[in-house]
Amino acid sequence: MNAQQITIDMALKAWNIQVSRMNSFLEKTDDTTLAKEVAPGRNTGTYLLGHLIAVNDTMISLFGLGERLFSHFDEDFIKSPDKKGGNSYPTLGSLRENWKQSNEQLDRYFSTLSADEWFGKHTSMSDDDWAKDPARNKLSVFMNRTAHMSYHLGQLAFLK
Amino acid sequence: MNAQQITIDMALKAWNIQVSRMNSFLEKTDDTTLAKEVAPGRNTGTYLLGHLIAVNDTMISLFGLGERLFSHFDEDFIKSPDKKGGNSYPTLGSLRENWKQSNEQLDRYFSTLSADEWFGKHTSMSDDDWAKDPARNKLSVFMNRTAHMSYHLGQLAFLK
Repeated sequence: MNAQQITIDMALKAWNIQVSRMNSFLEKTDDTTLAKEVAPGRNTGTYLLGHLIAVNDTMISLFGLGERLFSHFDEDFIKSPDKKGGNSYPTLGSLRENWKQSNEQLDRYFSTLSADEWFGKHTSMSDDDWAKDPARNKLSVFMNRTAHMSYHLGQLAFLK
Repeated sequence: MNAQQITIDMALKAWNIQVSRMNSFLEKTDDTTLAKEVAPGRNTGTYLLGHLIAVNDTMISLFGLGERLFSHFDEDFIKSPDKKGGNSYPTLGSLRENWKQSNEQLDRYFSTLSADEWFGKHTSMSDDDWAKDPARNKLSVFMNRTAHMSYHLGQLAFLK
């Protein structure tokens, strides 16, 4: 196995650890609990679940993999703060299903990427910027998204 | 730049992003606030700061870089839960200083590691395990420690 492939394996493993932690968390947390604020005045579990689905989904277009599944989530779950109930968020049953769909779709896409593609530039980066800093590749975005999941998992843990 | 070096740059960049976020957080958070629980009944900022110093410090021995600086923190900040005041934790002034020392020391050590060393096995791994899974290298531990910082930064953010 060469260094590129080892690196991709490491990054995928780190990603899958966070996804598994989120899955375990969702399994043992009922809807009533998930709808609560993780701390007084902070985001609800509902919002953070939608937020993670939306943010992870952006990798589909950023990596040029195809059409995004959840771009309609951006307005509610990325651009807007938590509306905290009394709003038109999808139900938690539906968000739980979307979380699964999102991970299945991302897994499928990720498995199609070659090592060179993982190390290649993403769509929002100019050729000039890329020439200056080849470490800003798809894998680097992927590692940031992994850390982003971890950040919010630290908050969701308070619902336990 | 080859794939190994690009990867190490990416991982160091991801690490430095979390360290910078922690530095900014510490700069704008006074001791009174930092001593509070991040959410009702949860860890204090004091404990989480000590915990991050201790956990990051474990890389020094795990990577065979030298003597740890903060192994005396393990009992209070890794093995024990938060004692929440009325205890013998170091002062926040001292913990803030230790956080800086920890990062300076880790930076120095990291800069001595060659690409092959980053991709080499860490000290707590047997040769057999290593042969089976070369993705479990120093860099992989380093990426997990990066995600770990992000996890607790998500919680510390509630003190703002």
